[in-house]
Amino acid sequence: MPAILSHPVRARLGMPCFQAAMSELRYHPFLDEWTITATQRQDRTFHPPDDYCPLCPTKPGGFPTEIPVGAYEIAVFENKFPSLSAPPPDPAVAGMPEAPVRPAAGVCEVVCYTDRHDLTFAQLPRERAEQLAAVWRERTIEIGARPDVEYVFVFENKGKEIGVTLSHPHGQIYGYPFVPARIRGVLDRERASREATGRTLSERWIASEMADGRRVVLQNRSFIAIVPFFARYPFEVWVAARAHLRSLAEMDRPTLADLADALHRVARAYDRLFGFSMPYVMAMLQEPAVPGYRDAWFRAEFTPPYRTADKLKYLAGSEAAAGVFINDTLPEETAARLRALAESEG
Amino acid sequence: MPAILSHPVRARLGMPCFQAAMSELRYHPFLDEWTITATQRQDRTFHPPDDYCPLCPTKPGGFPTEIPVGAYEIAVFENKFPSLSAPPPDPAVAGMPEAPVRPAAGVCEVVCYTDRHDLTFAQLPRERAEQLAAVWRERTIEIGARPDVEYVFVFENKGKEIGVTLSHPHGQIYGYPFVPARIRGVLDRERASREATGRTLSERWIASEMADGRRVVLQNRSFIAIVPFFARYPFEVWVAARAHLRSLAEMDRPTLADLADALHRVARAYDRLFGFSMPYVMAMLQEPAVPGYRDAWFRAEFTPPYRTADKLKYLAGSEAAAGVFINDTLPEETAARLRALAESEG
Repeated sequence: MPAILSHPVRARLGMPCFQAAMSELRYHPFLDEWTITATQRQDRTFHPPDDYCPLCPTKPGGFPTEIPVGAYEIAVFENKFPSLSAPPPDPAVAGMPEAPVRPAAGVCEVVCYTDRHDLTFAQLPRERAEQLAAVWRERTIEIGARPDVEYVFVFENKGKEIGVTLSHPHGQIYGYPFVPARIRGVLDRERASREATGRTLSERWIASEMADGRRVVLQNRSFIAIVPFFARYPFEVWVAARAHLRSLAEMDRPTLADLADALHRVARAYDRLFGFSMPYVMAMLQEPAVPGYRDAWFRAEFTPPYRTADKLKYLAGSEAAAGVFINDTLPEETAARLRALAESEG
Repeated sequence: MPAILSHPVRARLGMPCFQAAMSELRYHPFLDEWTITATQRQDRTFHPPDDYCPLCPTKPGGFPTEIPVGAYEIAVFENKFPSLSAPPPDPAVAGMPEAPVRPAAGVCEVVCYTDRHDLTFAQLPRERAEQLAAVWRERTIEIGARPDVEYVFVFENKGKEIGVTLSHPHGQIYGYPFVPARIRGVLDRERASREATGRTLSERWIASEMADGRRVVLQNRSFIAIVPFFARYPFEVWVAARAHLRSLAEMDRPTLADLADALHRVARAYDRLFGFSMPYVMAMLQEPAVPGYRDAWFRAEFTPPYRTADKLKYLAGSEAAAGVFINDTLPEETAARLRALAESEG
């Protein structure tokens, strides 16, 4: 009988939890960021043959995968090679006055979308995508309640082009023990806008995009998908809440179904763009698990790595070192293409 | 007679300057960054056969390359597919109140290190590397004097692994019409440290690294190469001024020779690490061309994309979307390996 296993499988079954060999947080004082130094990850499973996929169900008499059941709908378990864990290992080195060290506390979970090895998020039945959204919500609440977690980061890395080493359809959830600097900056700007104008930055930006209309890809009752005017990546799409919703935790069943609908339709449009299953990073921005960020406005950001059907967008000197993105596409044109693909599906 | 052509070749020769088809700056209000939207770059030269390298000298009777001489030592010319240009084209769209648009003013230059197609920076004779440093200095001063430029960014993208489409050894210089947000943040933190402690952040960090010693790769009279304690990339190396030097513009001949020496030895150590010519981004951080940043401290940052001899480090969800880097290597160990390689060369 297939089951939604939305509690960490090994914890639930009382199996021994993998202890990180070496993982710690080192403060980067020039960027005001924490770097996770986690050496045991070098040994993580790297493109195993399909018969040895650790995310497939465990077959009777077969090798034990990460998921000790014969079939499942959605499964969540702790990453075997975590960069953040509880309890975290002791740091390997002492810090510097200007660059302190702290334990890499937190959580890294894997979310398997289906027990079928050959599907993708875009290919899931709609009902499964809705179940998945409900699992994201439940994990956001449960991980966010942990005392060592300040931000719950729900994301999917998809495709070998961005370094994914397991092809089985899955996403990840990190519980960071801090609010990441980049996300804190976004949330600070939401608040500054509300204090200056009475409206958060997201509210103003969405109103501008809806008034203009050229970059809107699709929408439903609760969400709108837009190639942002200032897109940094070719074919970047943001799926934003139309009214103020701070996080997955605030979403009721119909809203979660709307989220699944919008994400699913965007992913399906991507797959029809170039005629192959589109790789992407899909990352959710939501309210942190600590107070002070009530202006947060939920969105999911899709950033595919392709700029044409056979050319990748690389992050090199201007993007990675100076922080200045060069987008080789026109957001108005990419939105029109994606919109047509989404609409033609009906 | 080989020549150092350190003025833009086409400008110098009065050839028509390429006019950008579509390029503009769009403000990203959530990140406080400018995105360059530049669609004509999709057509840029993509891995041409060696016989059609646009950075080789023009052979008698052959096709005209970007460099209309038969031999050269170092050549600088304007990028044929610039994301920034003067005069810039008019923006293609109107902005939004929260996301204004401005013309993509500035300059994009290409710096060819040698007329030999098959060399790399690491393989240049030392004397050529010193000439190159002198060219970087001259271009920094000349580009920085332009009224439309606020920051001169000297960098090299090397290797197909990070998207380089021309294998001829070359670097680039961008004259941005703003101080990039990431660099402005670094410089703000230099100043805040000096105001709080009397010493810039670089000065404090370098003192800590020298006192500890484990992450120092090499040094000479003027520069020190370090795998920073908080390295975000495997095998990341910073080549920093040992005493306060703000920019290439401030460096005299012996200092430029020391810079060439340090960069060259780091690049040569990289090539011996895995037995192949190491790809990297090499990016220089220096004082902007506008007032207000006197605490800037010169450094060059090397970030190779490899984490092992056959595995790349990808920037995916945690790095690109949350801004949290996971480094799979231990800076103390990578520095020891690079130091041994640098020392064994003598």
